[in-house]
Amino acid sequence: MNVNKIILEEQGLRDGFQTLTQIIPTEKKLEYIDRLVTAGLTRIQVASFVHPKLVPQMADAETVCKRLIKKSGVVYSGLVLNLRGVERGIDAGLDHLACSISASDTHSQKNARLTLEGAKKAFKEMVRLSKTNGIAVRGGIQCAFGCRYEGHIDEGHVLDMVDHHLDMGIDELALADSTGMGNPKLLGALMQKVVDKAGDIPVILHLHNTENKGYSNFYAATEAGVRIFDTAFGGLGGCPFIKSATGNIATEDTAHMAHQMGYETGIDIDKIAGISRELETILGYKLPGQLYQLLDKEGIAMI
Amino acid sequence: MNVNKIILEEQGLRDGFQTLTQIIPTEKKLEYIDRLVTAGLTRIQVASFVHPKLVPQMADAETVCKRLIKKSGVVYSGLVLNLRGVERGIDAGLDHLACSISASDTHSQKNARLTLEGAKKAFKEMVRLSKTNGIAVRGGIQCAFGCRYEGHIDEGHVLDMVDHHLDMGIDELALADSTGMGNPKLLGALMQKVVDKAGDIPVILHLHNTENKGYSNFYAATEAGVRIFDTAFGGLGGCPFIKSATGNIATEDTAHMAHQMGYETGIDIDKIAGISRELETILGYKLPGQLYQLLDKEGIAMI
Repeated sequence: MNVNKIILEEQGLRDGFQTLTQIIPTEKKLEYIDRLVTAGLTRIQVASFVHPKLVPQMADAETVCKRLIKKSGVVYSGLVLNLRGVERGIDAGLDHLACSISASDTHSQKNARLTLEGAKKAFKEMVRLSKTNGIAVRGGIQCAFGCRYEGHIDEGHVLDMVDHHLDMGIDELALADSTGMGNPKLLGALMQKVVDKAGDIPVILHLHNTENKGYSNFYAATEAGVRIFDTAFGGLGGCPFIKSATGNIATEDTAHMAHQMGYETGIDIDKIAGISRELETILGYKLPGQLYQLLDKEGIAMI
Repeated sequence: MNVNKIILEEQGLRDGFQTLTQIIPTEKKLEYIDRLVTAGLTRIQVASFVHPKLVPQMADAETVCKRLIKKSGVVYSGLVLNLRGVERGIDAGLDHLACSISASDTHSQKNARLTLEGAKKAFKEMVRLSKTNGIAVRGGIQCAFGCRYEGHIDEGHVLDMVDHHLDMGIDELALADSTGMGNPKLLGALMQKVVDKAGDIPVILHLHNTENKGYSNFYAATEAGVRIFDTAFGGLGGCPFIKSATGNIATEDTAHMAHQMGYETGIDIDKIAGISRELETILGYKLPGQLYQLLDKEGIAMI
């Protein structure tokens, strides 16, 4: 990969929309996916295959996937947390799945009803089933930089999980700061070790801006050599039921920052900002992203 | 200075309050100054000495200064942009003044009605008058990392201004990313050069989060050796008349991040968050800071 290129994977349709109180119609999701590709995004997480009773916003996951008009060169991915998810993702016609487990035992038990050891075993089966079916696997580790239940997560434990993931034969490795508790000094140092371990396996970082550190973690990770990041239009994400929650780092803000730092992303910021502006109108409140608010409709920064 | 100590200078009363549509009463300002000191702040910019017709929120600058009950070990400072401001600051009984000019010719002409050359001459007089009266001078450079009128500001030009400032015999040097256009890669590299030039003169950085890069710039500057930063409670600042504007980096968010990175600040985050929560109620809208929203009244992070 070109060292001056940074790739963003759009999470707005999954991590963003899953947190909304209102359901975004399937038709609108498909329109946004199309607009994202037009805006230069080459990786889009289009849905998660979780139980529709738990996450009703993703109840149309299969429909979205089956109605996708796939463009070549674009990765359309789905998030799966268990074997049933893998089966659904394969049936829906995806050829890329993000299989993910948590680094926090308590979070894993509450979120996936699995102990850490159970989650590791489940992960092995998820990868095996995916690979048997010719599916590319992004192997993910949630809560890698902190957990609201357990607090700090030990670096050695995370690195052990990284080894375990790599041993499974994953195609890509993803670490997630699910809680936004990571800080650039420790996260940067850990990501340097992860990048070294991963070798030729691409490393992806998923960041939240919950404690206003998301973009500094992005910067620290670029310095550590990470070149693929999860982002969401408008900085969507987090949970609307929690007054304090904020979302992923924003696609347009991150792309703008990357461009200023000398990286190429291939992303048309104005087009992403247009989606965020439209969502602000649909949702009726300001999103956490700054850049879509700074750009007028012609893409000119206002003083 | 202890390399593991980071000092924050509170700007909420000046950069924060000057942007509000409603005027905060003098009594309330004095209460906040007192609460800030109790919370561990050792540097507070209490007012600016600008024309009250232009900035009516600062019309009580003299009253605030004269009614201050100064605690030993705390720097109470005022912002001045011209000779008249220096005279007013001295008359008000301050012994520390932040004398500041802009690195952008257009911004300087619009904001201070001075060309760059005129501003440099004015700065020299401001420092001279201050020093003659035994006042400690923080010499500031606004728009050091970008200007909404001129775009990018040349690094060589900023370093020339740094030399000029240092030659004037200032006690402290301050650079400001007034527009939030700085990015951590370039800002970090420039601050490294500034810290090297400044030698024993303390270097201060004033950051805005306008483009969501404020905290990454904070991180990059700590890596470059900067140890004093301007912040405002709740991330107040920016201009309420501009829909997109955001404020300074938040005192409590920055302190929290600094603590996580292994620095001491001496700041009680909960006490600052209490001020931000109260201001949210007074103003009737959410402030940009995240941490005061994440902490409940007992200072416990909510999931």
